Amino acid sequence: MKIVVFGSGNVAFHLAQALDKIYDVAQIISPNISHASSLAKKLKNAIASDNIREAAKDADVYLVSVKDDAIAEVVNKSPNDGLWIHTSGSVGMEVFSSCKKKYGVLYPLQTFSKNADINLSKIPIFIEGNNGETESRILQIAETLSGKVFHAESHQRRQLHISAVFACNFANRLWTIADEVLKEAGYSFNVLEPLLRATLDKALASSPADGQTGPARRGDQKIMASHLSSLTGDKKEIYQLISSSIFNDYNPT
Amino acid sequence: MKIVVFGSGNVAFHLAQALDKIYDVAQIISPNISHASSLAKKLKNAIASDNIREAAKDADVYLVSVKDDAIAEVVNKSPNDGLWIHTSGSVGMEVFSSCKKKYGVLYPLQTFSKNADINLSKIPIFIEGNNGETESRILQIAETLSGKVFHAESHQRRQLHISAVFACNFANRLWTIADEVLKEAGYSFNVLEPLLRATLDKALASSPADGQTGPARRGDQKIMASHLSSLTGDKKEIYQLISSSIFNDYNPT
Repeated sequence: MKIVVFGSGNVAFHLAQALDKIYDVAQIISPNISHASSLAKKLKNAIASDNIREAAKDADVYLVSVKDDAIAEVVNKSPNDGLWIHTSGSVGMEVFSSCKKKYGVLYPLQTFSKNADINLSKIPIFIEGNNGETESRILQIAETLSGKVFHAESHQRRQLHISAVFACNFANRLWTIADEVLKEAGYSFNVLEPLLRATLDKALASSPADGQTGPARRGDQKIMASHLSSLTGDKKEIYQLISSSIFNDYNPT
Repeated sequence: MKIVVFGSGNVAFHLAQALDKIYDVAQIISPNISHASSLAKKLKNAIASDNIREAAKDADVYLVSVKDDAIAEVVNKSPNDGLWIHTSGSVGMEVFSSCKKKYGVLYPLQTFSKNADINLSKIPIFIEGNNGETESRILQIAETLSGKVFHAESHQRRQLHISAVFACNFANRLWTIADEVLKEAGYSFNVLEPLLRATLDKALASSPADGQTGPARRGDQKIMASHLSSLTGDKKEIYQLISSSIFNDYNPT
């Protein structure tokens, strides 16, 4: 099976290499020709190009791993045959519907970076196809990459993305605040490592709702008032808002 | 060295067993006599009591691991000699100053539960003593438990506690929200596990501020508006407040 990959960023970098182990990735097409060439060199027999119009017309699969805003340009300037798959969590598969016949989505729920090896086999992959036959071909490809493949329509991918924003992006923001509070006291963020890992393990083993602890959970007004007295600005607002959110949930009136 | 432990909760349960490997824990005193007895049975040669006034007068160390509000009662009804140590993150060592001569704090920064074994050796322990000699005795005891012992005065313990509230209690609240959003889409919280672990590893390896990603970090107004349109109540308020907090920090005007 011959695959053309559009993109040479973090997702394309890892998916192209994983797919090339099973299939043949023939081309890497990216406006950044130096990234495209480095990636092509890691593959069995791929060539690099910076021109969408040079995409092979006879590929079986076209994998589009470019920035969300760049997907439409790839779609419009490329051949129409073959199976078209993008890897975005935020773009509907309808981006392909005006000119492609077989298309869908393969969305890996992970953060990728080029300098970190990644074991895709445990990464959840969410797929969708424009009809049953297309989806089962995408399923087949996804299952060569990961043991955790799920069906997800656009509205479900949006929910996945929202959940990841809360669970990862926003949690990371709270860790940044914690880091700042610790620095003021002369400590490094790493003093929290055992507590952070234990908290995450507990949330994953049962459920985060069951694992909730802390002053807001207990309704300990004295401690909360003492903490608030030493916070200002958005730290104070976030402390108040999340504490109320916890308190109201666990102490129904 | 003879130790009396007040309390039979999660912290007392783990500290008493760890201390008994090096020293001699002679008594477990707790209003819950059945918990006190179970804990005493796990020790080399300890007896249980539910009466503070029965505390041995000749112990070298008295470890007070009871609820914050119960510390004062223990202090008032007990012998005054020996070295007095409480394990709370939120109570100043001055709770001992009215009647004890040698006193301080030994605060392990971890969440404990009786049914989970814990390796104390990597848990940060924060200590304070009422004078240099006392502190060095507490340091000696703490170092038999953990390789990570730090000095912390009351205001630093408060900062530690605030940071733990943000990093763990509040992050756990965001995970609860993510879990709810995922459930609506038909998925379990565990689909986020690889992403959560990668996000935490990255925050610990460099710093959470360096690892910040997501729509608010990029200033992607389109995605944020789309997410907000499907959120209500405190989920929406939290999304807005933390997004602004991230956006304002990474996109200075």
